[in-house]
Amino acid sequence: MADKINVLSNALTNNGWKGLLVTDPTHVYYLTGFASEPHERFLGLLLLNGEEPILIVPALDEEKARESSSVSRIVTHTDTDNPYELLKGFIGGSIDSFAIEKEHVSVARYEALAAAVGAGRYEDLGPVLREMRVRKSADEVQRLKHAVHLVEEVLRDGLTHVREGMTEVELVAELEYRMKKLGADGPSFDTTVLFGAKTAMPHGEPGTKKLAPGDLLMIDMGVYAGGYASDITRTFAFGSISPELEQIYNTVLQANLAGIAAARPGVTCASVDQAARAVVEAAGYGPAFNHRVGHGLGLGIHEYPSLHGANQDPLVEGMVFTVEPGIYIAGKGGVRIEDDVLVTADGVEVLTSFPKELRILA
Amino acid sequence: MADKINVLSNALTNNGWKGLLVTDPTHVYYLTGFASEPHERFLGLLLLNGEEPILIVPALDEEKARESSSVSRIVTHTDTDNPYELLKGFIGGSIDSFAIEKEHVSVARYEALAAAVGAGRYEDLGPVLREMRVRKSADEVQRLKHAVHLVEEVLRDGLTHVREGMTEVELVAELEYRMKKLGADGPSFDTTVLFGAKTAMPHGEPGTKKLAPGDLLMIDMGVYAGGYASDITRTFAFGSISPELEQIYNTVLQANLAGIAAARPGVTCASVDQAARAVVEAAGYGPAFNHRVGHGLGLGIHEYPSLHGANQDPLVEGMVFTVEPGIYIAGKGGVRIEDDVLVTADGVEVLTSFPKELRILA
Repeated sequence: MADKINVLSNALTNNGWKGLLVTDPTHVYYLTGFASEPHERFLGLLLLNGEEPILIVPALDEEKARESSSVSRIVTHTDTDNPYELLKGFIGGSIDSFAIEKEHVSVARYEALAAAVGAGRYEDLGPVLREMRVRKSADEVQRLKHAVHLVEEVLRDGLTHVREGMTEVELVAELEYRMKKLGADGPSFDTTVLFGAKTAMPHGEPGTKKLAPGDLLMIDMGVYAGGYASDITRTFAFGSISPELEQIYNTVLQANLAGIAAARPGVTCASVDQAARAVVEAAGYGPAFNHRVGHGLGLGIHEYPSLHGANQDPLVEGMVFTVEPGIYIAGKGGVRIEDDVLVTADGVEVLTSFPKELRILA
Repeated sequence: MADKINVLSNALTNNGWKGLLVTDPTHVYYLTGFASEPHERFLGLLLLNGEEPILIVPALDEEKARESSSVSRIVTHTDTDNPYELLKGFIGGSIDSFAIEKEHVSVARYEALAAAVGAGRYEDLGPVLREMRVRKSADEVQRLKHAVHLVEEVLRDGLTHVREGMTEVELVAELEYRMKKLGADGPSFDTTVLFGAKTAMPHGEPGTKKLAPGDLLMIDMGVYAGGYASDITRTFAFGSISPELEQIYNTVLQANLAGIAAARPGVTCASVDQAARAVVEAAGYGPAFNHRVGHGLGLGIHEYPSLHGANQDPLVEGMVFTVEPGIYIAGKGGVRIEDDVLVTADGVEVLTSFPKELRILA
């Protein structure tokens, strides 16, 4: 943790900033080890040039912060305190440049902060943290592998409970129960289970639709474990599958493999998307693949980089992201196959290992 | 839904704004009926003076939006489109005032928006939406009651599974499983189950601590159902309770009742907090009640109003909020008792009905 604060201190010096404030709870966890959900309460890690970092936490989180934070100077505020006055007290008079996470700080908080801090310029701390987070350390890779291992166990076990007539939400309940029982912190996002034609909605919501023979069954889920997220999608057939949906399935599988095969350090994010998309387009389903091929994965379930056709950023060793092409035909159904991959020195290591060949559940 | 858009249109006219943009997914749901989690993708309801509202959604959510949105003019964007260019196209040239949700829009999004929209002034849409949301309609009250009913069923059933040696996370798994089985959309926040001295941490995290005789057992949880959240806390003793903790329990119970008794239209939020706090202070535990007495509840799990000692806003009929005093003694344990109440014409209706007298589980 101290290493990470040092990287931040160096960024402060190198950019000529006089101070910086980290308020995203995920970043506070990343930098200090203190995990919390402050809701609308103020949480901040304040770093001023040449001074010891200060962690500002709601009073009710003090004990937990003292137990887990690597930053030992902890200041609390109660629900009737104005945390921006606290900040003003530490910062003192005017300051010419101050960095904040522009993607996290709301306009309302920015206005309150600006009134208290009165800096000449507000710089974006986002790129510094993004650069730190994008290259996963060995410890982070271990945590990600553990989160993947857990979700695959959940999927394996959950499939044994699939039966005709069960509803989407019932299967969600079975899967999420197993997440907790296996020791995950919880789902990394709302578990998606869709049956039949509903699989054509990439963000469809599980409901009370009953599983019937001939349905596709799509499961998109992940868990948080040790602070890190996994994310996997597998699509199955129940009872039988039509020739058209089988062709779609195999096209998506080939697109998934082509995307993975294209990934290695130095190639662009766009090229991974294009490799998968070319397979889908060649099969005549181009417009039915209506989302990017993947997204970064780590402390966040959707983090940098975004793997879409216009992103020319290069892949670097240590990145972790999803590869998840899909084809969606309204009224008929959709197929998505999603893996998590780690960029290695010369290619990728696929972290997910759950079989991808078409499986017809009985 | 059309009524709500009309209220928004009137706010536009009355404030002299030329346009407004709603981007908080909760507000988009409230106003249009379209529920989604766009993650980092752009979602927005654009309303320009005298024009039909436009719902801008990620392409992959189009089918779901068309199924559920009351706004029929739906425009999509893909992952390679720049949604701010889309906005610019609709807004046209310069515009002198434009309202956004300042508590929701990030500085980064604001900068992108400002570059595209180029308005002279950016006003805060937040107070208009807050005013609409704070007075719950009959339909909203029904949904809240249903969410409360579900979580109380979960609690009742979950308690039958409590046994010596089980871990906090195991009990969380049992409770959340029941939420889904009973038809809730899911937990409205991370279910908190704490045993023993850990109950002294209001935001403690469930772990692998095993339940032992003499432990306090605190359960703080809620569910989302039909878009609305419930939130309840009950604290139990397991096997036995020390005289000191029993005194603390009874103090918190009296504080909870005093807070509820103080609430009616016209009194301030602060006075509810003070009524509960006075009981705790009289018993000598003032500093150990280290948080506000409650928070608004509705589409959000923590929404306006905040019931703390400095909030002079008056209660109004139709408000729903929590009353949840607590006393926390580091190393020994903590007690919190939380109810959800609806402000009526002359007092409150307590929505939660789970018994509050000290119960010693065996």
